[in-house]
Formats: sequence, C-alpha cells, structure tokens
Amino acid sequence: MLGGIFARGGAAAAVSDAAFVQAMLDVEVAHARAVLPPDAADRVAAAATLDAFDLVSLGAAAARHATPVIGLVDALRAASGVEEVHVGLTSQDVVDTALMVVSKRALLVILADARAAASALALLAEAHRATPILARTLMQPAQPTTFGLKAAGWMTAIDEAAAALAGVELAVQVGGAVGNRTDSAAAVAAALGLAEPVLPWHGDRRRVAALAGALGVLAGSVGKVAGDVVLLAQGEVAEVRDGVAGGSSAMAHKANPVAAISTRACAKRVPGLVATMLSVMDGEHERAAGAWQAEWETLRELLRCTGSAVAWCRALLEHLEVDPARMATNLSTILGDDAVAHNTDMLIDRALAAHRAR
Amino acid sequence: MLGGIFARGGAAAAVSDAAFVQAMLDVEVAHARAVLPPDAADRVAAAATLDAFDLVSLGAAAARHATPVIGLVDALRAASGVEEVHVGLTSQDVVDTALMVVSKRALLVILADARAAASALALLAEAHRATPILARTLMQPAQPTTFGLKAAGWMTAIDEAAAALAGVELAVQVGGAVGNRTDSAAAVAAALGLAEPVLPWHGDRRRVAALAGALGVLAGSVGKVAGDVVLLAQGEVAEVRDGVAGGSSAMAHKANPVAAISTRACAKRVPGLVATMLSVMDGEHERAAGAWQAEWETLRELLRCTGSAVAWCRALLEHLEVDPARMATNLSTILGDDAVAHNTDMLIDRALAAHRAR
Amino acid sequence: MLGGIFARGGAAAAVSDAAFVQAMLDVEVAHARAVLPPDAADRVAAAATLDAFDLVSLGAAAARHATPVIGLVDALRAASGVEEVHVGLTSQDVVDTALMVVSKRALLVILADARAAASALALLAEAHRATPILARTLMQPAQPTTFGLKAAGWMTAIDEAAAALAGVELAVQVGGAVGNRTDSAAAVAAALGLAEPVLPWHGDRRRVAALAGALGVLAGSVGKVAGDVVLLAQGEVAEVRDGVAGGSSAMAHKANPVAAISTRACAKRVPGLVATMLSVMDGEHERAAGAWQAEWETLRELLRCTGSAVAWCRALLEHLEVDPARMATNLSTILGDDAVAHNTDMLIDRALAAHRAR
Amino acid sequence: MLGGIFARGGAAAAVSDAAFVQAMLDVEVAHARAVLPPDAADRVAAAATLDAFDLVSLGAAAARHATPVIGLVDALRAASGVEEVHVGLTSQDVVDTALMVVSKRALLVILADARAAASALALLAEAHRATPILARTLMQPAQPTTFGLKAAGWMTAIDEAAAALAGVELAVQVGGAVGNRTDSAAAVAAALGLAEPVLPWHGDRRRVAALAGALGVLAGSVGKVAGDVVLLAQGEVAEVRDGVAGGSSAMAHKANPVAAISTRACAKRVPGLVATMLSVMDGEHERAAGAWQAEWETLRELLRCTGSAVAWCRALLEHLEVDPARMATNLSTILGDDAVAHNTDMLIDRALAAHRAR
Repeated sequence: MLGGIFARGGAAAAVSDAAFVQAMLDVEVAHARAVLPPDAADRVAAAATLDAFDLVSLGAAAARHATPVIGLVDALRAASGVEEVHVGLTSQDVVDTALMVVSKRALLVILADARAAASALALLAEAHRATPILARTLMQPAQPTTFGLKAAGWMTAIDEAAAALAGVELAVQVGGAVGNRTDSAAAVAAALGLAEPVLPWHGDRRRVAALAGALGVLAGSVGKVAGDVVLLAQGEVAEVRDGVAGGSSAMAHKANPVAAISTRACAKRVPGLVATMLSVMDGEHERAAGAWQAEWETLRELLRCTGSAVAWCRALLEHLEVDPARMATNLSTILGDDAVAHNTDMLIDRALAAHRAR
Repeated sequence: MLGGIFARGGAAAAVSDAAFVQAMLDVEVAHARAVLPPDAADRVAAAATLDAFDLVSLGAAAARHATPVIGLVDALRAASGVEEVHVGLTSQDVVDTALMVVSKRALLVILADARAAASALALLAEAHRATPILARTLMQPAQPTTFGLKAAGWMTAIDEAAAALAGVELAVQVGGAVGNRTDSAAAVAAALGLAEPVLPWHGDRRRVAALAGALGVLAGSVGKVAGDVVLLAQGEVAEVRDGVAGGSSAMAHKANPVAAISTRACAKRVPGLVATMLSVMDGEHERAAGAWQAEWETLRELLRCTGSAVAWCRALLEHLEVDPARMATNLSTILGDDAVAHNTDMLIDRALAAHRAR
Repeated sequence: MLGGIFARGGAAAAVSDAAFVQAMLDVEVAHARAVLPPDAADRVAAAATLDAFDLVSLGAAAARHATPVIGLVDALRAASGVEEVHVGLTSQDVVDTALMVVSKRALLVILADARAAASALALLAEAHRATPILARTLMQPAQPTTFGLKAAGWMTAIDEAAAALAGVELAVQVGGAVGNRTDSAAAVAAALGLAEPVLPWHGDRRRVAALAGALGVLAGSVGKVAGDVVLLAQGEVAEVRDGVAGGSSAMAHKANPVAAISTRACAKRVPGLVATMLSVMDGEHERAAGAWQAEWETLRELLRCTGSAVAWCRALLEHLEVDPARMATNLSTILGDDAVAHNTDMLIDRALAAHRAR
Repeated sequence: MLGGIFARGGAAAAVSDAAFVQAMLDVEVAHARAVLPPDAADRVAAAATLDAFDLVSLGAAAARHATPVIGLVDALRAASGVEEVHVGLTSQDVVDTALMVVSKRALLVILADARAAASALALLAEAHRATPILARTLMQPAQPTTFGLKAAGWMTAIDEAAAALAGVELAVQVGGAVGNRTDSAAAVAAALGLAEPVLPWHGDRRRVAALAGALGVLAGSVGKVAGDVVLLAQGEVAEVRDGVAGGSSAMAHKANPVAAISTRACAKRVPGLVATMLSVMDGEHERAAGAWQAEWETLRELLRCTGSAVAWCRALLEHLEVDPARMATNLSTILGDDAVAHNTDMLIDRALAAHRAR
C-alpha cells in the first residue's frame, strides 16, 4: 500500500519474498550442478521454478523450524524426485548465498538508478556552470557560488558512493553443517556470479555488514541531495522546483515536492537498519541463535529503502526545474549587486571528468 | 514468507496494509459522524468497508502524492456520494490518527501475549521457588540462587515493561490543514477510543516516539528472557529446553530452540527502528517533508517485530521444559556440595504479589 | 575542548567522572549507615570525600577488573579503617545505584532548563497570540497561522516530554552477589532519594533503557524547536533571529545561529545512543559480560548531550528575536493580502493552562 | 575514570582534545606553508605548539561561535604575529582536515593492534589445526570441527575488516568559505599525508560516514571473537580461559574474563554511533547547521571505542589459554566417542596464506 513510496524502482522486486525463494532455488540448482550427476541436476533445475512452490506453506514451515530452508528442500525433493538435493549444504549456506544473490540483483538496478541520477546531475552541472546562486553555510547567507558546482558536488557524492557500493564483495557460502566444507564453493560461485571467499563465513558477518554500510552511505548521499532540493524549493527561496509534484488533500493550491519528500522518507529509514546489521555481527559460534536470523528481513529492507531512495532521487533530478533568474534575484537581494561568484569551471570540469571516467 | 518468524501473534495483522487502510476509513467515518448530518455520515460509514477499495490503485495514488489519503478520499467520495467527506481534515490527521488506531489494536494483542508470558513465568516462579540453580555473573559461575527467582525476575521485567507500554497516551489528531483547528477532536477521539490532546500534534512527534521507546523496552525484556533460555539450553548446561524445538536441514540429531531464536531475532531488530523514530522527531514546521513519512512503515514494523517477539516468548515460556536435576548437578559439580541457595521466598512472594495486583 | 558545545548546562558536571565516583561513595555510605554500627558508618562517611581519592589510580584498577568498584572499595577501606564497608554489596549494586544517583542529579538541572525553556515559550505564545505567520507544510507555503500557536506547540512538546522524563522511576540496586538479597534496599533507597524496586534488577535493564528513551524524546523535542528556528532564521525568511549569534572564521558579515546549531548538534547525537541502550538489554544471566558495562558511559553521554541540548534551547528561546513585520510581509507576499489567520486563542489558552498547571 | 576500559590502546590519545587541537594547528601550518612566504610560514609553525594554547579558553570560544576554529586562529595569530594565517580557509576546512589527521593517526595504532590480534590467531590456528572441538550451531551441539579452524575464521574476519578500514580514503578539505576554492589542496594534502579529493566535500559526508562504517565492521569482528571466548570460557564449557582475568568485589573465587568483557563492552557501543554518523549525512547546503557539528565528538568516540575494542581483543588473544583436553572431553560427552572432526588443514592453510600475504 505504501510500497509506491518506499519501494520505487526495481530493488523491491529484486528482494521480494518471491525473489528470495527463487534465489534459494537458484542456490540449490547451482549446488546440484556442482555435486550431482547431470541428469539429477537437470531434474532439480526443472523442478526449481517458483510457481511450483506455495509460499504460504513454505512460510508456515519456516516458522516451525526458524529457517525457510527445510520446507523448501522438502518441496524441492518432492517436486524433483532427487533425494540428494541439498545434501552437503546447511540452511545457512542456502539463506546466506540467496541473500547475496538477491543483493547482486538489487544492486544492478540500484547502481543503474544511481548512475542515471548522476548523469542528470552532470547535465545540470554543465548547463549551470555559470549560473550564480547564493551559497548558504550554517543555514545563513554566505557568498555566491554556482548552481553548476552544487550539482557537481551532488554528482560526485552519488558517483563515489555508488562505486564504493559496487566494490563490496558478494561471496558464496558453501560451508556445510559447521563451516568446514572445502569443495564446490568455486563451482557454485561461478554459477551464481559471486566471489569465492577464503573461508566459509557462517560466523563472520562482515560481508552483509559492509554491504549495509555502503548502502547507508549511498542512501545518505541521495538524502542530502533531496534535502537541499527541499530547501531550495521553499516558497521564500523558489530557486528550484520538484517536477514530480503532487497534491494536497486539504489545500488545492499546493504542489508538494513528492520526489524529494519520498527520497528523504526512504533515506531516513536507513541508518537505524544499518545499526541493526552491525549490532548482530557478534552472533554465537558457528551459527547464531537470533542474531543471524535478524539479518534476513533487515538486509532486504535496506536494499528496498535505499533502492527506493535512489530511484526517487533519479526521478527528482531528471525532472528538476531550475530558475536561474530567481537565483540571481535572491543573491542580489541578500548580498547586494556586487556579489559575484568565482569561476567554478575548473572544479566542475574535474568532477565531470571523474564522472565520465567511471 | 518469513512472516511466520517475524509476524507471530496478532500484531502483524493489526498493522497490515489492509488494517491500516481500514483504520483510515474508520477515521473518516468518525469525523463524518462528528461534522456531517447523520444521513450523510451513514452513507460514508456504509461505503467505508475495506473490500470496496483496491489497495493496488490506492498504492499508486499514494506514490503520486506522497500520501495515501488523497486516493482514499477520492474513492470514498465516489463510493459514498458524499462530497463533504474529509473536509476540514488534512492527510496528516488521517494518517496519524489511523496509526494511533492500529497501534491501539496491536497493543491489545501484544499486551495480552505479554500478560500470558508473565503468567507462565508466575507458574514457574511458584513451582521452582526452591529449585537451586547456579547463578552466573559476567558469564562465570557465581553462587547458588533459585530458578524461581530467575523466573520472577523475568516476570517482573515483562509485567512492568507491559504496564509502561499500556501507559503511553494514544491521541487523536484533528488539526486541519495547518494544525489550528479547534472543533471535533473530542468527538472523534471518543468514537475511536483515543485521547484528546491539548493541541494538534502535527509537528510534535512525542507520542509516536514514546510509543517506540516503550516497545523497545518490552522487546528488550523478552529478548533478555530468550537469551537466558538459549544459554541455559546449551548442550553443556542443559538445564532447560525450548519445548517449541525445530529441526535442522543438515543435522538430523539437532533440536533447535526455535521459540527462543525467533524471540531474539525479532527483538534484535527493534533498537535500530526506535533510533529511526527518534531521529525523525525534528521534522520541519507544521508538517515534515520526509521525516514524518519515514514513521509510517517504521512504527508498524516496530509493532510487528515487538508483537512477534512477545508472542514467541509466550510460546517459549508456556512450553519451557525445566530440568531441576540437571540444575542441581551443574551446581554441585561447579561449586561443590556445600553450595546452598539462600531462601528466595520473600522476593518471589513480593514479585508474585505485584504480578497479581496488575 | 568541545565541551562548551556539547556540555552546556549542569548535566555534564552531574555526570562527570568525579561526580560518578562521588555517587559511588555516596552509595557505600548509605549502605554503611544501613548495615554497620553508627561509629563505623561515621568513619566511612568521613572518609568518603572525593578529594581523598586518586581518579587516575582508580581508573587503572577499573581497567584491571572491568569494574571501577574494587579499587574504590580498597581505597575506602584503607581510608576509613572499616573493613566491613561494601560487605553484602556487589560491584553492580554500587555502579547501578550510582548511575541512578547521577541521573537524579542530572535530571534536576535538565528539568529546570526544560521548564525555563517552556516558560520562555509561554511568554512568546502570549505575546504573539495574534501575530500572523505563514504555516509551512511539506516545506511549502500552506495557510496562515499565528506565531503564538507555533510557540505553544513547542512549549507543550517540551512540557510533556519533561513530565514523562520526570516520571521515570529511578530505583536503588541492593541485590548482593547474585541478586537475591532482601535487606537494606529500603534504607539505602531512602537515604539516596531513590525508589525501592520490587526485585533487584541486575539482569532487568528496563530502568536505564526507559530513562534513555525518555531522554531521547526530550532531546527530539528541543531539536525540533531548534530546527524550526534555523528555518525561520534563513536569510530569505528572516522571521526570527537567534540572539546567541556567533561569528565566522571566513566571512565577517555572518551572524550564525549558535544556540540553534548547538541544540541540534547535541540532539542529533541522542537517537544512536538510545539504540545502544536498548540493544544491550539482553545481557546474560545475573550480570552481563559486556552488555551491562556498555551502559556506563553511554547513559552518562545521553544525560550530557540531552542536558546540553536543553540548556542551549533554553538560551535560544530566552534570547529569540521575533520579527512580526517580516512574518506579515512573507505571508502577504506568498499567499496574498487576503490570507488571514484563524483566531488561535482557544488553543493557545488551553496550552498555557496546561503549562501553568504543571 | 572508565578510560581504562573504554580507552585501551593508542587510539584514545590520538583523538583526545589535545590531539585534535594539535591536528588543527598542523592544518594551519600546512596551509601556511602552501600559501604564505617561507618566513611567515616558519613563524606560524614555530607558534603552533600545543602547550602555548589554553584549551579551556579555546573551549569557551568554541561554545561562543559553535566552532573551535575562531578562537584557535585568534590565538595563533597573536602567538605568531602572522595576520594572514588561515586566510582563505574556513572553519570547516580546518575541522574536517583535522578530523582526517586524527583519524589517520588513530588508524595507525588500531590497524597495528588488529594485525597483532590476527597474528596471535595465526599462531593459534597453526597450533590447534588438529585440536578437535565441538561446533555449536544455533547454540546447540552440532558436529566436530577444529579449534584451529575457529581461530582461522576469527583471523580472516579481523584481517579483512582491517584491510577494508585501511582502504577508506582520508582526504584533505581546502574549500574556502563556500567550497569553491581550487588552489593549495594538493600541497596541504601532501604535507599531511592525506588524499586530494575531486572536489571540496563540505556538504558531502561520505568520507566520515564510510570511515564510521568500516570502524563498525572491525568492531563487530572483534566483538564476535570476544563473544565466542566468553561462551567457551563458561564454567560448564571451560575450553578456553581469558588470561587477563580480574577479580570480583563480592566473590573471591571468581576470575572474570576481563579482556573479553571489555572488548565486548567497547564493541557494543559502536553500532549506535555509526547510525548517528549516517543520520547526519543530510546536512544543509554548503555547511550544515547541526548535522556537521554532531560528527565531531561522535567520530572521535567511534575511533576511541573501536580502538579500545581492538586493543582489548589483542590482549585477549595474546594471553588466551586453550584447554584441548577439555575440548575433547566435551566433544565425546556430548556427541559420543565416534565423533571425529574432518581434516581442516586445507581451509586453515588457505586462511594462513591469505594472512601472510597481507
């Protein structure tokens, strides 16, 4: 119902219950291809289609065992007739690898939206490289700058945050019951497009924690852009306008900055979720009793919220309406006619060069 | 899919999308009864049945306007033929009051589960008032205590956390476009069973923040119980057993403490969500552009996770298997046969008296 | 060095290392008076003066034992010649009760500053009950309201958040080694002005968690006020001015809103600290190995940051400069001359009556 | 007073008030050398010694202006007689760059402690590559593994978390009043051993946020190790012993795991602080009014807590006492004599090779 606000873009679909179940099935198939005879693996693959599984009964089994894997494997065995499916794996192998798979799929769309947002900013930086605007520090009038430089700063932040996110290693988990298994990780990793870790990481939660942190930095970066747009769009400032404006249930004259509001609403939910991911890193021994399980929905929520924030920010920037005349008026009204912006070409060019080199 | 783990008990249903839409409709009906002629209000009430509304199209409208209310009011006007429905209200009135309504409904079940968990503990405290057990401090053997006193301590924590939660004021919001409306709040409050605030609270987010904090304290209290159970159920300790045990996908001999794990998994997600609720208290002016909207799913998630934690803890405690013989063995093995627990009757009696007085 | 910003007001001194050691000494004295012969207790009391203790060597002992109490008791025994001091207590009794004592002392000044801030707002609400100002919703121009009603809303939030904080029960901890002690709690509680709990609460961290939550709500409430002031003080809006203005190292013309900035800087640090307090509620058994210790500095930091936020907000409000003419100009410029604020007297009177009744 | 627990190792000194002031002086000197004639720069450098400055009066000036820089520059001008010092910089340039400098200095010791901890684990992994131990999953007995593999897993986590932390770019900030300055950044960066960013980053808080996230992951990784040690050191398990044991104020027989407790106490404070850093990324325009300032103590606290956690973990691991006989006994008692650990040499060798290649 509120998904339109908090689930814009493709990340929500990439981390949905259905997508998560499909990813678990993909893990079982990749493992079957690595360890079973080809014909058995083919039967597993043929059976591992999402619509053959009943999510409601899988959910009930998940509650019964505190893991979604037991019910899934039972159903997959029944559907494929291959009793050996999953043998050698443990629940955590399947869940962790599936979370990496959905993360990989979600990152594809998140990074594409981030790149599009940055490209929209590159156009703004180029177009407004000589558009003077009042810089505000500590929320007070400071000195002139250019709107192009503001746009370039937003662009660089999004570009570099996206690059850092893209650099997080997403690795397969094939540890077996207690994390001492040594075979098949490479094959499963290759099949799923994931990295092979030095060791199984049942008890080492750095990967998901680092992913959470990188999502937090990207969400913070787009939240910053939206926050500045909201400030620039105030009635008394009116230097930009959110082109994705929506209405009011009480005031017909209003055009609310829907894309900026939604970007911020999504982004503000992220830091608390990152704290959760970090706080559960200290799970016990070879598999945690509560800490690990707390990651499952939290990581997917992080991907969903960050993805939605980035998608909204992209829409915001692709439709942003800029009013250079109002910028000039505000500037001279507040700082006087003598206030002239330094040439910011050198900085803008450097930022654009870095953007284009990505 | 994972709802079985993270949505046990009635809170999840009480805060679902459907329940939230129904609550918004209830707010519109209560307001209509307060301000419209009886026959118009009757028509609104007759139209305000959930199944007459399409959640998908409401969701699309919500995304368009960054509020779920505009689409809902359009549909309610169309269904009822009463053009005056909602007039005088603003989106935030409807959303905030509906969040209070769903909170009230969720608290009913959460508090009932908490009371049942405490009652299960009262039985354990009574039954084991003279059952010696090793107390552990800083995770090292300390001195003897009784299992009855441990149970009484868990009971008191849950009882008092539930009482504090029950004491959070849930108030109606009838402020109109900018929070200066003075009529009808009392009538709407009475109809919905909510308190009437001193002032409209569009910009004053204490109520939802305090509710979040109280949920956090209750979740922490049941998480503590589950954590202790997990420790007592370790193979080397084996003094209690989670009666809601589940299986393992890799190790047939295992009986995992499903209820304790699930309680903890839910509880560990709560502190980060509380931080989110507190961090968005500083929304701008008469209605925030992002901070307020970030509350919507977060508060419902808090109710869902806390509710699920409490429901799991109730199940855990109603099925807890206690092994006094093993407690005695561990105690004498570690501290020697001379270690005798003080009589803890006085403390247990005091705790039980406080429990019964609630 | 940065204490001027983050330690304004009396809370910082009330939670300092020296104050914490003094509070621990106060606990030992209160306990000695409850259990020792009067002359022995007198000798303990005479010895328990802060300047007789070396904080550096106490700190070294604290690191050696992961508790500050062992070194303190050794020194107190040596100074008083009373070997029986502390007998019957455990480290956690002393630390927890001392944290309650410093909290009580810090709350005195925090609540006094909150009351002063609310009183400053009461004057503003009264003086500006008929001063029209543009209400902004979703950061866009909405409709006229009065500055008096804005001030009344801020006042009510601070008043009620302070009342909730004042209502948190601060209780003594006299549990002995494993929390089963039954004597003396009442006497120690009476001597220190704390409540007597139903049970010792070594393993039940609700009190400090609830205190943290209530501090979070108050910090959020003053942060909201400061945020609105910062927005109203923008160059393009200029409807209020932070009277505690400071300079810029680079721009001589600037007068930065120092009190509002500092209020916000303090308040923004609070939600993360609250999350920490909630996340460590699940400490193990009768005394946690890490979770409990993490509370010590965190709770004091929470008191310090919240206290500083409230003290800054008081200064902000006691020196706030209001420009009704500019409010009128902005209003008519944006909404036109026909925009007239509803009479808000009824709401303001109701809020002032509630304020005066406290 | 509690610094012994929360400020072990060199990070606390590297981020102290004195160190922070010294770092600000270092920034002014580096900038003076970049822009002033050599003799003027020499005079600035000669004057920029910490003991010539009064931290108390600097603190008072910091509170007056909500920045520590104005007072510092006044004092430095007076001491050096060079009026042009700081000209071209703004407060944020000095504070941000100084935070990068203290971070760089703190990271040196944190990373050295992390490496030493990992080396201690490498020795354990080698020595115990064939020491069987019970693996525990979901806090229940699972199957045999080796203690060498457990140690290798802890080692890999610390190694890789430290490498990720070392990879965070620490960059100079030389933006001038509004972030459009283009000269001198390279020279100041070279002098201070920092990177030169594409653009000034006044409004782009990724660097400090990413640093916070990487600290969070390292803190979580050592917290995990300490948590496992605490579990293995329980009286009923007794497979390892914290060699840094401390006493109890109430129970003479106890030897508490001081290093493990302190590691955990420090680590548990980190996630909330990371959430704070992420939540203030959305500061306004060219310099935030509150959000930026909230970083100053938070980032230093993060470095201090993480540094202390790592230093405690190093001590823990360098003094860890391992009891292979007890491991064997527990294993056969619980799983029977037939339970034999798989050979884990291949995994341990792979982990050790990766460790040595760093």
